[in-house]
Amino acid sequence: MSESQTRKQFVEDLTDQSDDFSRWYNEVVRKAQLADYSPVRGSMVIRPYGYGLWENMQRLLDRRIKETGHQNAYFPLLIPESLLQLEADHVEGFAPECAWVTEGGREKLEERFAIRPTSEAIIGHMYSRWIESYRDLPVLINQWANVMRWEKVTRLFLRTSEFLWQEGHTAHATQAEAREEVLRMLEVYRDFVENELAIPVYAGQKSDAERFAGAQDTFTIEALMKDGKALQAGTSHDLGQHFAKVFDITYQDESGQRQHVWQTSWGVSTRLIGALVMTHGDDQGLRLPPQVAPIQAVVVPIWRKAEDRSAVTEFVAKLRETLAGKVRLHVDDRDQHSPGWKYNEYEMRGVPVRLEVGPKDVAQQAIMSVRRDTRGKESIPLASIAERLPALLSEVQASLLQQARDFRDAQTVLLDSKEAVIAHFNEGKRGFAAVAWDGSAAFEAEIKEKAGATLRCMPSDLSRFGSLVRPESRVALFARAY
Amino acid sequence: MSESQTRKQFVEDLTDQSDDFSRWYNEVVRKAQLADYSPVRGSMVIRPYGYGLWENMQRLLDRRIKETGHQNAYFPLLIPESLLQLEADHVEGFAPECAWVTEGGREKLEERFAIRPTSEAIIGHMYSRWIESYRDLPVLINQWANVMRWEKVTRLFLRTSEFLWQEGHTAHATQAEAREEVLRMLEVYRDFVENELAIPVYAGQKSDAERFAGAQDTFTIEALMKDGKALQAGTSHDLGQHFAKVFDITYQDESGQRQHVWQTSWGVSTRLIGALVMTHGDDQGLRLPPQVAPIQAVVVPIWRKAEDRSAVTEFVAKLRETLAGKVRLHVDDRDQHSPGWKYNEYEMRGVPVRLEVGPKDVAQQAIMSVRRDTRGKESIPLASIAERLPALLSEVQASLLQQARDFRDAQTVLLDSKEAVIAHFNEGKRGFAAVAWDGSAAFEAEIKEKAGATLRCMPSDLSRFGSLVRPESRVALFARAY
Repeated sequence: MSESQTRKQFVEDLTDQSDDFSRWYNEVVRKAQLADYSPVRGSMVIRPYGYGLWENMQRLLDRRIKETGHQNAYFPLLIPESLLQLEADHVEGFAPECAWVTEGGREKLEERFAIRPTSEAIIGHMYSRWIESYRDLPVLINQWANVMRWEKVTRLFLRTSEFLWQEGHTAHATQAEAREEVLRMLEVYRDFVENELAIPVYAGQKSDAERFAGAQDTFTIEALMKDGKALQAGTSHDLGQHFAKVFDITYQDESGQRQHVWQTSWGVSTRLIGALVMTHGDDQGLRLPPQVAPIQAVVVPIWRKAEDRSAVTEFVAKLRETLAGKVRLHVDDRDQHSPGWKYNEYEMRGVPVRLEVGPKDVAQQAIMSVRRDTRGKESIPLASIAERLPALLSEVQASLLQQARDFRDAQTVLLDSKEAVIAHFNEGKRGFAAVAWDGSAAFEAEIKEKAGATLRCMPSDLSRFGSLVRPESRVALFARAY
Repeated sequence: MSESQTRKQFVEDLTDQSDDFSRWYNEVVRKAQLADYSPVRGSMVIRPYGYGLWENMQRLLDRRIKETGHQNAYFPLLIPESLLQLEADHVEGFAPECAWVTEGGREKLEERFAIRPTSEAIIGHMYSRWIESYRDLPVLINQWANVMRWEKVTRLFLRTSEFLWQEGHTAHATQAEAREEVLRMLEVYRDFVENELAIPVYAGQKSDAERFAGAQDTFTIEALMKDGKALQAGTSHDLGQHFAKVFDITYQDESGQRQHVWQTSWGVSTRLIGALVMTHGDDQGLRLPPQVAPIQAVVVPIWRKAEDRSAVTEFVAKLRETLAGKVRLHVDDRDQHSPGWKYNEYEMRGVPVRLEVGPKDVAQQAIMSVRRDTRGKESIPLASIAERLPALLSEVQASLLQQARDFRDAQTVLLDSKEAVIAHFNEGKRGFAAVAWDGSAAFEAEIKEKAGATLRCMPSDLSRFGSLVRPESRVALFARAY
C-alpha cells in the first residue's frame, strides 16, 4: 500500500459522528492510541497517550485534593465478604458486580474476598480502629486506585470491569461539617472538570432512586456528550452515619461522650477520559484541552530539497530551546512520513496546536501555527513565540469550553410536564429536559420506563430554570445517559 | 494517664534495636504511622505518612524513568491462566503464589484469572499485537501498579500479599540494545536509591539459582540493613527472547525479515520503604532522608506564659512565609501536647530537622534547629534561614548516606573459601561475605544449606574485591537476607 493510500485510509476509516457515534467513539479511542482491548473480557489497556492524559488529570486534581486539606493513603485491594455485607444497601448494590477471589497460594480460602468495587467497607473498618477522640477529627483521606465492577460488555473508558479512580473518604464530628465537605468536593470536581477538561456540567443532587448504595444523599456533576446523552462525571456522597453505625466508628467528644462520626465519600474515574473524547471530538478525531493534553503543540518540520533540511532542523532546535519548560512540545522529525500524513495523525490525536516549520518560515524567522479547534492559522515570530504560544493555548482551552457550553445550553430544554418529557425523548430528541418534579418515585419511574431517560440531578444553580420553580416541587433534569 | 506518663510510654515502648530488631521494626512502622495491619491476612494499609513517603519516592523515580525515554501506561490487573502458563519457568515461579479469581458477577468463570504477580505475560501479549516493524522499536513502557503474591505471614512493607511497585517492560531490535537497557535501568535504580534514599548498594548480577522466573539474566542492587541482613532493593531483568518466542512478539526488520524482539523488565516496590526504615532508623525511631521525607522540617512553637504566645505565633507565621515553596514544612501548634512530647513524636517519625521557636528565639530573631541524625543544634537567624535550612537538609542527607556506607563497608568481609563463608555466618556474624566463586551451583547451595546465606550478587564494581579476582572464578557476595 502506498503512503497516500495509507493516509487516505487512516482518515477515511474514521466513521463520521453523525453516521454512528458509538462506532466513531471506539475508532477514535483506538486510532488515537488512548486505549486498547485486552484478552480479559471487560478490561482495557490504557496506552501511553491515554495514560499521559490521565497523569495530567491526576496531577491537576490531586493538587486540588491536597489544597483542600486531604492526604493520600492506600488500602487493600481485597475486601473480606463479611465486611462488605455489614451495610445492607451497600452489599445489595455492589455484590452482584463483584469479582471474587476464592483461591490463594494453591489453597481454597475459607472466606471469599471481593476485589474492591469501592472502599467504604475496608476504610470504615480501619477508621473504627484509628479514630478515638474529637482531636482525631476530621479524617481527610483520599486514595488513587484500581477498582473492579464485573462487566460483560466493554466500552473503553466508559464501561470496563477494571477502571482507575480516586476515592476520598472522610470522617467528621458533625453532620453539618460532613455536608460542607460533600459540597466542597462537588465544587472541586466542578471546577476541575470545567476549567481543566473544558467540560461544562450541571451540579446537583441525585434522587433517592439514583443515589449511591449506602449513602444518605448523593451529589453529582452531569455532562452532555455530543450525541446528546448525559454522562455522570463525578459524585460526592453524604454517607450520614450509615457506615459509622455498622462499622462502629465512634469518637469521644469534648464532654467525654461517645459519638458516631459523620462520613463522606467522593470519586472520579478514568471514565472522564471518555467524557473528554465525547465532549470535544469531531470527525477528524480528538480535540484535547491544552491543560491536560500530553502534547500541547507538535512541531512538523518541512522540506522538499535536501539543502533545506539543515536550516529547518537548526531552526526547530532553536524553537525547542525557546519553548523548553513552557509548553509540552513534541517534534516529529520522522523521515518515513510526509508532513500531510503527520497533520492527519496529530489531528486524530487531538494535539491543540500544530507548528509548521518550512524553508519560508525559516526565512521569515517565524512559525506557522494551526489550531486544532478552529483550524485558525497564525504566523508567530520566533522572537515572540514563548509568549504567544501559551496565550494561544489558553485561547484554545477557553474556546473548547465555550463551544461545549453553547452546545449543552442549546440542548437543554425546559418542559412543563412529565408527558412533555416523555414525548421529547420519544421524538428522538436528546439533551437535558428540565421539568418541575413533585418529588415522587412514580413520576421518575414513568419517564424512565416510557422514554428511557433518567433523573440526572436536581440542579443547585436554578438561574436558568427560574420559570420552573414552584413551592411544592423541585427542578429535575432528565436525560438518556451513559 | 497523665501526659508525662503517655510520653514516657510512647518512647519507652519502642524496643531497642539491639534487643529485638524485628520487633523494633514492627513497632516503629506502626508508631510512626507508616502502615498498619488490615483485616485481610497478608495485606497492609499504607497510612498517609507512609504514602507521602511513597509519593516522594515515586516522583523522584518517575522523573528518572521518563528522562531515560520511557512512558507510563496501564495494563489489566487480571491475567488469564492460559496466558500465564505460556512461559514455563515463569508459571512455575509464580503460580504457587497467585491469588485466583474464579467468580465474577455471580457466575463461575470458565477460566481462572490470576491477580497479576507481575505483568510480563499480559504485556507480552499486547506487545505481540502492537509491534509490527523495526520502526515501532524500541517500546519503552513503565507501569505503576499494585501486584499480589500470596503470603501467609505479614511483615509490613517487606512481605505482604499485595504491594505497590513500578514495572518497566521494554522491547528492542537487538540483544545488545536490550542488555544496554537492563544496565541503564540498574544504574537508574542505584542512583535513585543512593542519592534519594541515602541507601548504599552493591550492584551486580544474580546467579542462575536466584534469577527471576523466566529471565535469561537478572541484575540487582543489594542493600544492607542495620541488623546485618541484606535486602534486594531493585532488579533489572534481561529476558532475552524467552517471552518473545512464546508470545510471538516479532517485527519486520529493515530487510523485510521477521525477527523476534529482545525484552527487558525491571522493578522496585514499596519494599524500599522497609529498606529505608531498617537502614537509617535508631532506638528513637525513624530517620528519614530529607529528599523523600514528607515533612522536612517541623516547627515547634514554645511558650509558657500566655503573653509570649502572640509574639511566638507571629514569628512562626513569618518563618512559614519565608520558607514557603522551599522546604516541606509542618507547624505543630497543637495545644494539647507539650513541646517535649512533640520532640519525641517527630523523632519517632524521623523528621530530619526540628525548628524550635520560643520567646528567647523571637528576641534574637533566630530559630534553634536540631538535626535528627546527629542531634546537632544550631541557631539560625530568620534572615538567613531560607538559605541555611536547605543547606542543612543537604548535610543531613549526605550524612545519612555516609553513615550507612561506613556501616555497610565495615560489615563487608573478604573471605578465602566456601568453608570460611560458612563458618562466618555460623559464628553469628552478619553482613556481606565476598568470596571467589567457581560458578558452580553446588558451592552456592552448600552455603545456603549450611549457613542460611544466599548469593546476593556478583558485584560489577570489583575495586574493593581486587584480591579475590582470579581468572577461573568470579567474585560473589553472600549474606543472610530478607
